[in-house]
Amino acid sequence: MIDLYTFTTPNGYKPSIMLEEIQLPYNIHKIDITKNDQFKPEYIAINPNSKIPAIIDQETGITVFESGAILMYLAEKTGKLLPSDQKGKYQVIEWLMFQMGSVGPMFGQLNHFKKYAPEKIPYAIERYEKETIRLYGVLDKQLSNNEYICGEYSIADIATYPWVAIYEMQGLTLNNHLHLKRWVETLQQRPAVQKGMSIA
Amino acid sequence: MIDLYTFTTPNGYKPSIMLEEIQLPYNIHKIDITKNDQFKPEYIAINPNSKIPAIIDQETGITVFESGAILMYLAEKTGKLLPSDQKGKYQVIEWLMFQMGSVGPMFGQLNHFKKYAPEKIPYAIERYEKETIRLYGVLDKQLSNNEYICGEYSIADIATYPWVAIYEMQGLTLNNHLHLKRWVETLQQRPAVQKGMSIA
Ligand SMILES: N[C@@H](CCC(=O)N[C@@H](CS)C(=O)NCC(=O)O)C(=O)O
Ligand SMILES: N[C@@H](CCC(=O)N[C@@H](CS)C(=O)NCC(=O)O)C(=O)O
Repeated sequence: MIDLYTFTTPNGYKPSIMLEEIQLPYNIHKIDITKNDQFKPEYIAINPNSKIPAIIDQETGITVFESGAILMYLAEKTGKLLPSDQKGKYQVIEWLMFQMGSVGPMFGQLNHFKKYAPEKIPYAIERYEKETIRLYGVLDKQLSNNEYICGEYSIADIATYPWVAIYEMQGLTLNNHLHLKRWVETLQQRPAVQKGMSIA
Repeated sequence: MIDLYTFTTPNGYKPSIMLEEIQLPYNIHKIDITKNDQFKPEYIAINPNSKIPAIIDQETGITVFESGAILMYLAEKTGKLLPSDQKGKYQVIEWLMFQMGSVGPMFGQLNHFKKYAPEKIPYAIERYEKETIRLYGVLDKQLSNNEYICGEYSIADIATYPWVAIYEMQGLTLNNHLHLKRWVETLQQRPAVQKGMSIA
C-alpha cells in the first residue's frame, strides 16, 4: 500500500496518474495547500520543503518527496514506464528533469503572475508567457517524430501532461503546436489519466 | 572520454565538479550563452531545449542534457556519489529533484530580477528573495543534523553547491543559516570542487 499525500494541482496529479497506470493500491491523504496544511509539523516531517506531493511506501517504509523522485521510485519498484536500457532510461530521465526544472517552475510562475499576484506586472507576465510558449515549441518538435515524448509512453509523459493540460486555464492555445495538441488529446483518453486527474 | 558542453554558470559547473570528483577524462566544449551559441543548430541537435550543460559519452554514444540527468548518468556509470540501496538512493534523488525544481529555477529568477531585468520590479525581487531565503532555511535545517545534504557526500551536494556559493553575488548572506554556511565552506575546500568551478 502507498500513502499518497497530495492535492488537486498539476504536481499533485502526477503520482495519482502514475499509481493508476501501474495499478498499485494507494490511500490519498489530502494536504489542502489553500489552508496551509503543508506547513503543519506532521507534514514537514514527511516533506521538509512543505510542498505536495509525497509518498510513504508501507511495504518498504521509504518516504519520497518531489514528484519527479516519486515517479522514478514507483517506476523502479514496478519495472514500468521507465526503460531498463541505459540509453532509453536516460532519455526519459532527461525529459523528466526538463519537466521538473523548466516546465513546472516556469508554467507555475506564469500562473502566479497571471492569476494570483496582487498587481498585474506586464513585464513578468510576458516573460513567463514567452518562456511557456518556447517550452511548448520544444515539446512540439520532440512530438513531431515521437508518439510520446520519448517514443514509448513513460513517466516523462505523466510528469508533463498535467502542466500542459491547463493551457486554457493559463489563457494559452495549442493551435500553433499541433503535435503537442495531439499528444494532450491522446493522453486525455487514457482511463488512468482520467482517474488520476479526478482525485478529490 | 566524455564530451562536456557547458559554460561558466551554476548549472554549467555541476558536471565539471562531478567529472573531477569521479576522475573521468573529459573535453570541454564551450557554449557561450552570452553569444547565443546555445541556439546554433549543432547544439540544438544535442540539447533541443537550447540550454547548457549537456554531455556525450564517447564510450556508449549516449547524449544526456539537463544537469540533474547528467549527474545521475555519471553516478550510475561509475558507481559513485549515489547510494545503491533504495532508501539512500531515493533520498539523494529527492534532494537532487529539489535542487532542479526549486533551488535552480528560483535562485535563477532572483538573479534575473535583481541583475538582468531592464526594470527594477520590487514585487518580483521580493518574491524570489523570500523564496531563496526560505530554501536556504530548508537546506540549513537538513544540514543541522547531516554533514552533507543526505549524510554522505553525493550528487545532491554537487547540484546544490554552485547555486548556494553565489550568495554574495545575489546580495544575500548565510549568517542566518550557519549550517548551510559551514557546508559551503566545507565544499569550497574540496580540490574537485575548486577545479570544477574554474573551467574557463
Ligand atoms: N518540485 C516540486 C514542486 C511541488 C510544488 O510546487 N507543489 C505545490 C503545488 S503544485 C505546493 O505544494 N505549493 C504549496 C506551497 O508552495 O506552499 C515537485 O515537483 O514535487
Ligand atoms: N534545468 C536545466 C537548466 C539549464 C539552464 O538554465 N542553463 C542556463 C545557464 S545556467 C542556460 O543555458 N541559459 C541559456 C538560455 O536560457 O538561453 C539544467 O539543470 O540543466
